[in-house]
Amino acid sequence: MRTFITAISIGVALQASAIGITSPSGDIVLNVDVDASGVPIYSVDYKGKNLVSDSRLGLTADETSFADGFRIESVDTVTVDRSWEPVWGEYSTVRDHFKELAVNLKADNPERALTLRFRVFDDGLGFRYELPVQKGPNYLTLRGENTQFNYTDDHKLYCIPGDYDTDEYLFSETTFSGLPEALNSYRRHSEAQRTGGNTIQTPMLLKTGDGVYVNMHEAALDGYPAMLLDVDTENYDMTSHLVPDRLGVSAYLQLPFNTPWRTLIISDDARDILASQLVLNLNEPCAIEDTSWIKPMKFVGVWWEMFTGNQKTWAYSDDHLARPGETDYTKLTPNGRHPANTDNVKKYIDFAAENGIDGVLVEGWNEGWEDWASYRKNRQFLFDAPYPDFDLPLLRDYAKEKGVKLIMHHETAANAADYALQLDRAFQFMKDNNYDAVKTGYVGAIIPRSEHHTSQWMVDHARDVIERAADYQIMVDSHEAPRPTGLCRTYPNWLAQESARGGEFESMGGNPPSHTCILPFTRLKGGPMDYTPGLFQTDLSYYGEGKTDKAGTTLARQLALYLTMPSPIQMACDLPENYNRFPDAFQFIKDVPVDWSDSKYLEAEPNKYITVARRDKHSDDWYVGAITDGNARTALIDFSFLPKGEKYEATIYEDAPDANWETNPQAYRIRKVKVDSRTRLKQHLAPGGGAAIRVVPLK
Amino acid sequence: MRTFITAISIGVALQASAIGITSPSGDIVLNVDVDASGVPIYSVDYKGKNLVSDSRLGLTADETSFADGFRIESVDTVTVDRSWEPVWGEYSTVRDHFKELAVNLKADNPERALTLRFRVFDDGLGFRYELPVQKGPNYLTLRGENTQFNYTDDHKLYCIPGDYDTDEYLFSETTFSGLPEALNSYRRHSEAQRTGGNTIQTPMLLKTGDGVYVNMHEAALDGYPAMLLDVDTENYDMTSHLVPDRLGVSAYLQLPFNTPWRTLIISDDARDILASQLVLNLNEPCAIEDTSWIKPMKFVGVWWEMFTGNQKTWAYSDDHLARPGETDYTKLTPNGRHPANTDNVKKYIDFAAENGIDGVLVEGWNEGWEDWASYRKNRQFLFDAPYPDFDLPLLRDYAKEKGVKLIMHHETAANAADYALQLDRAFQFMKDNNYDAVKTGYVGAIIPRSEHHTSQWMVDHARDVIERAADYQIMVDSHEAPRPTGLCRTYPNWLAQESARGGEFESMGGNPPSHTCILPFTRLKGGPMDYTPGLFQTDLSYYGEGKTDKAGTTLARQLALYLTMPSPIQMACDLPENYNRFPDAFQFIKDVPVDWSDSKYLEAEPNKYITVARRDKHSDDWYVGAITDGNARTALIDFSFLPKGEKYEATIYEDAPDANWETNPQAYRIRKVKVDSRTRLKQHLAPGGGAAIRVVPLK
Repeated sequence: MRTFITAISIGVALQASAIGITSPSGDIVLNVDVDASGVPIYSVDYKGKNLVSDSRLGLTADETSFADGFRIESVDTVTVDRSWEPVWGEYSTVRDHFKELAVNLKADNPERALTLRFRVFDDGLGFRYELPVQKGPNYLTLRGENTQFNYTDDHKLYCIPGDYDTDEYLFSETTFSGLPEALNSYRRHSEAQRTGGNTIQTPMLLKTGDGVYVNMHEAALDGYPAMLLDVDTENYDMTSHLVPDRLGVSAYLQLPFNTPWRTLIISDDARDILASQLVLNLNEPCAIEDTSWIKPMKFVGVWWEMFTGNQKTWAYSDDHLARPGETDYTKLTPNGRHPANTDNVKKYIDFAAENGIDGVLVEGWNEGWEDWASYRKNRQFLFDAPYPDFDLPLLRDYAKEKGVKLIMHHETAANAADYALQLDRAFQFMKDNNYDAVKTGYVGAIIPRSEHHTSQWMVDHARDVIERAADYQIMVDSHEAPRPTGLCRTYPNWLAQESARGGEFESMGGNPPSHTCILPFTRLKGGPMDYTPGLFQTDLSYYGEGKTDKAGTTLARQLALYLTMPSPIQMACDLPENYNRFPDAFQFIKDVPVDWSDSKYLEAEPNKYITVARRDKHSDDWYVGAITDGNARTALIDFSFLPKGEKYEATIYEDAPDANWETNPQAYRIRKVKVDSRTRLKQHLAPGGGAAIRVVPLK
Repeated sequence: MRTFITAISIGVALQASAIGITSPSGDIVLNVDVDASGVPIYSVDYKGKNLVSDSRLGLTADETSFADGFRIESVDTVTVDRSWEPVWGEYSTVRDHFKELAVNLKADNPERALTLRFRVFDDGLGFRYELPVQKGPNYLTLRGENTQFNYTDDHKLYCIPGDYDTDEYLFSETTFSGLPEALNSYRRHSEAQRTGGNTIQTPMLLKTGDGVYVNMHEAALDGYPAMLLDVDTENYDMTSHLVPDRLGVSAYLQLPFNTPWRTLIISDDARDILASQLVLNLNEPCAIEDTSWIKPMKFVGVWWEMFTGNQKTWAYSDDHLARPGETDYTKLTPNGRHPANTDNVKKYIDFAAENGIDGVLVEGWNEGWEDWASYRKNRQFLFDAPYPDFDLPLLRDYAKEKGVKLIMHHETAANAADYALQLDRAFQFMKDNNYDAVKTGYVGAIIPRSEHHTSQWMVDHARDVIERAADYQIMVDSHEAPRPTGLCRTYPNWLAQESARGGEFESMGGNPPSHTCILPFTRLKGGPMDYTPGLFQTDLSYYGEGKTDKAGTTLARQLALYLTMPSPIQMACDLPENYNRFPDAFQFIKDVPVDWSDSKYLEAEPNKYITVARRDKHSDDWYVGAITDGNARTALIDFSFLPKGEKYEATIYEDAPDANWETNPQAYRIRKVKVDSRTRLKQHLAPGGGAAIRVVPLK
């Protein structure tokens, strides 16, 4: 990491009264004060207009309150301009440029101290609570955080329902006043512990009538529960709602303690929201010294077969009372519908090797899948016990010979306690068998039974797993874990997470085309998503057996997702046989990188469209992806990001004129055109469609 | 294990009505029936008198009830007479002789099946519920078990208060009708989650007006919560009370499932209660194939120093906010009162080597002791991070050179979840540093926060730890774990547990002399206790600094405890300097074995006195221990257990005539006498006193 710092620290002792700082550009103005009751308050203006009006700040614990009675003891300000180089990501260098204001608060009777630290960037701001060692209690049983975000009008909201255990929802596009109806329209998710009231989750997006976009989320969630938002739909206010454990406690804190950063990414240009690295900037630098083993990758896998309606299963047997570790799987009657078997996995390895795909994920390889009574037993899976039809030594050697990496799968059935007990053995077993990456899963209700998926203990568990994985030089792609908050900067072996409604839902109700037009504005601001793009057979009735799902996408759009949903670990989710039916289109998946030196967001509007260009980290090639919602669209692709005077050949993977996600999804064309920095390309996108372009310098 | 079996199995189909079997001797008669509502009931007679009158049996779960509507479908009976050889214990061979009755129950609407399995021995009985795979639900969310024990009169009870989290209480000697007052007399234990009502714990002892003794406990507690007893003090009934988790669920069960055995050890001779191996007999055979590494042992340790009132601490520093893994302990200011330091530990190693003591326990060697805010943080201790003043490589090599084994200490602060996460590393760290045994501790409120010390998850955790330890060939002495139920037969690396008010309380309020006269009748029926005998400096005012505690014991009695409190791992708890003040008495601790080929209980009355003789497993030497309560007593030691005609020399360590636990505890004498099988020795025991005798064949 290279760092350039220009820092000026000013300590000012104050008697009272408001303090303000601005963003480096001056567009964002932050004011902080305490009110007559000593309650800390803040407000935010953007380009001369109030965005967040006076909003209260505070924490409440059983032992004491940090909510009122404060006076401003002193303030510290500093300006920082530095940059850092991520191990992987959208940019090879990230600028971290902000003005910082630390407001040191004191209270008497009882004595309390609290620092509010704000960082104002050109693209938004973050703030956190810092609790120094106190004269009073230094352990807090935190019941809540009262962080308000008071907006001034009935803005548009893009959000999903508040939930302690899942974020696999479609987004609503609504307003403050429309939120109750929007939330009522959700059917209760089977895993969900829906909160009462008008509660929503972050990351979410807000858009004002003036066309100002605000992404609300948090950064560096560690040792603390996830934050939901309680929405006052009449006064246009939001208040933090910390996920409690099942006993009602939000967090156990030992001081000194800093909360996660509460973040607002702000711009009147939607493209800036997508380009923002604010959440990463508010995370700690990389904690892993040697990162040479962290390698972005593409993979195929034994996975989608279980979603195509052909009755294939993760389980080896249909005896749902089989018990891992007690059942003799070598004698259990196999169901004959278990694709995680040696012959089938060999076919995936062959396919990966032939097409330069780095890895092969295999789900359903280990004992325990027969019985999905998660939460109801204290041992569900074994992580070092392959099923008898999965010849691990053979496959390990076969994959190695073919130059392909097997990717491990650890489904825990949400028994995080049992996973912790098996963790060292599971990771050692991986290394012994030449695995470098694992996909984890937490489907079901959490054990320890005091916990939710996003309560403090589980946040700690997720970090423990990542740290332990790093000890073994293992990369992680976690599913059903607490949604990302930029911790992948600190732990770059945390390649991706699910933490949203992913591609799998194309076989369970479908994802409308707009879904991938809102995820980059919301969920992706926390970190990469394992969305599993690359679906070529989008009409699942192809598989017969009563399946009628139609994915909300054209084939060409699936290629564009590799650009619009950036991730250092990207699946090619479909079956090899489907890729073999469309080898020319599959060529794009073979070519597209997963790590970038630069990114240019060309067009963007939430829920509607995204066009982005990215430069390969390891060549001079550029790639462009464009997607639209359910409406056809003409993307205007401005190639001025190319170096002046250089000539390129663009290979365009596009929807055919008659393509349509619903009626004609597999109609695509591939054409080549010459482009340079002066090119302005009008690119047709079908309803639910997209375009993917590879741009290669002409020699 | 050698096994002799005489088994006859009889399957009988019945329409209805009572079934009875007797113990092999015929003294105990068991009757089983279903009542008019189809509720299973049983009763027990002893020597022609009713002991337990008709008592209900049943289980209740959220999914269905196993409490009524039953008919007896069939019964199976079998007589078994076999024996087995424990890895260690009071006997080299244990006879397992019983008649078994399996009552197969069926119910309609909904269909349910339940087997009640009874085993009736000459010294008592056990029974359990067996839930086969059902046509109905095969997962149960168990809310309770309704096992009644209906007694017939206001019997005497020896028991401690019901508690979900601790059993470190003094015993009450009371009656059914006196129980409420007895329970009210307890001050609330700081760690205790006292249950409401007249609830008591097992193991407990009952004595009828006819002089029949009954020990009530359970055997083979695994995958199930511990059982307390709710006492109906007016009707003299008891009902099982399963420890729930903090969400109110007793157990999550997957069928088939067998509950632990509910056990009654019954005799009109108190000595039979002490001699009974019934609880071990009801446990599964040894699950560890190679047990050669399991070695009974004696040890000294850096431990009592922290109890003697001299302000010595487990912690390296007095900074109570220090955080293991985050604090730089090499820079933290040491408090200078930390006995787990290299020089001091070397002295203990020297002492052990000089005196043939096998091991040296060191408490306070690892990071984390500064901060005892257990339950309030998710990481308390590191188990592979020695304090900077504990030079582990040096001590490892020094101990090895001296032929002494260091014993590890893992205090978890009751954070079982974090211990599970660190377990493999902790055990590997032990093996890397030549440790073979660990003392575990769970002081505080349990994490996972859904759990109690004795709820189902923690019972599973304890078994997981023992199994994992066995994988590393590590022996375990667990403190604050679920009290033992004979699982040490199955896992003989589980050498001992605390699970009662131990010797440490001599510095925290004291243990009256009667305490060790009731523990063998109660707590010890589950398995060995790490009571930590060997206290020579019993008057703690010796150490000054305001300490006034006087242990309820003479010095000679402390020697007798090595016989009356048998354990394969015995501490010599006092400071080396105190042993050096009384080298002739310490000779007994050097000599006394910890593993036996035979045991003869010569005299016994609960809360009053115990006299026992044991034969060394590895020689022809016998040892005798006799203790009394607060009253002086003359023990009558009948040496007829010696082989006829053989001559022995007995070395008697006895209270001096003027010894008294309170006023003159260190007055002891050592004398030698010749004994043979005809010797009847009248042995004086002082108030709170005892005698220990080594009996060696004359060559």
